[in-house]
Amino acid sequence: MKSLEERIRKDGIVKSGNVLKVDSFLNHQMDVELFNEMGKEFKRLFADRPINKILTIEASGIGIACIVAQHFQVPVVFAKKTQSINIDGEVYSTKIESFTHKRVYDVIVSRKYIQPTDHVLIIDDFLANGCAVRGLIDMIQSAGATVEGVGIAIEKGQQPGGRMLREDGIRVESLAIIESMDDETGTILFREQ
Amino acid sequence: MKSLEERIRKDGIVKSGNVLKVDSFLNHQMDVELFNEMGKEFKRLFADRPINKILTIEASGIGIACIVAQHFQVPVVFAKKTQSINIDGEVYSTKIESFTHKRVYDVIVSRKYIQPTDHVLIIDDFLANGCAVRGLIDMIQSAGATVEGVGIAIEKGQQPGGRMLREDGIRVESLAIIESMDDETGTILFREQ
Repeated sequence: MKSLEERIRKDGIVKSGNVLKVDSFLNHQMDVELFNEMGKEFKRLFADRPINKILTIEASGIGIACIVAQHFQVPVVFAKKTQSINIDGEVYSTKIESFTHKRVYDVIVSRKYIQPTDHVLIIDDFLANGCAVRGLIDMIQSAGATVEGVGIAIEKGQQPGGRMLREDGIRVESLAIIESMDDETGTILFREQ
Repeated sequence: MKSLEERIRKDGIVKSGNVLKVDSFLNHQMDVELFNEMGKEFKRLFADRPINKILTIEASGIGIACIVAQHFQVPVVFAKKTQSINIDGEVYSTKIESFTHKRVYDVIVSRKYIQPTDHVLIIDDFLANGCAVRGLIDMIQSAGATVEGVGIAIEKGQQPGGRMLREDGIRVESLAIIESMDDETGTILFREQ
């Protein structure tokens, strides 16, 4: 999606350690108008899929997922990173390693909100090693529901998550795929799509 | 907001310990169409205020805030509960005690995203003791920005947060205010507004 690539070039900051900061518009301050364009694009890309639910993971996936959901007219469920007293004991759970936070989270979704009849689109802001997406897929499959696809804002193409998911037959659509970044020059190269 | 009250009556579950579970439509599974109605109502209520930014706190405030933001055509910033390597050292921080999770969080917002010229609307899903809202107000005031008001989905009127904020001159608009709940009968009484 050209407008997202342009925005990343304009406002993204490349840091050492393969870190791309996009917190001015994507995952701390959020440009809801841009999310709306992203929602339109995901709807176009997944128009052939009978999606009736969007699944994401807290925290930075939630905003994108909610705006995207308006284009599909479906509810959003977000997986939670810690057990809350407001969640029933009846949950699907998985462990997810965060690239950003360098730690492992327990992640849960209430069983009530993923049913075997559900056709789920996973939405998240970043795809790097794919741990978060793998964890969400695990929970959807535990529920006997169908993974219709994965919609990502920014995929780090140098990391294997996206490739491995596609090799496993999962439909992954990333609106911008980073081929390489240079933190000394600030240069970002995107994969042609 | 009558439609929100009706939804709480229909799908909310009253638990012992003054807990109201609304995770089927508000803070785990999210009914984006309902959020849209809420956004329209907040825009009506705060139409006279020169709001240019919405501030919320992760995780369950984010979805509502993003949908609401579409009605104001402004960006959203969400306060983060833990220090991330993706956030610069330059942050406003505060401590917030969570009623739900029975613990104290360190909460941060990057200084870049609250400027002295900002006129901020705080959005959150619940208001009980008001700790989260107080923390967000602290950070806005530290930045020298203006708190234009607080928009809440569900206020627990039996707890003092809302009353104390209003006594301090903060404009608080809650779409549903719970006067009392009974976990044995499941009855929920709302305050007339």
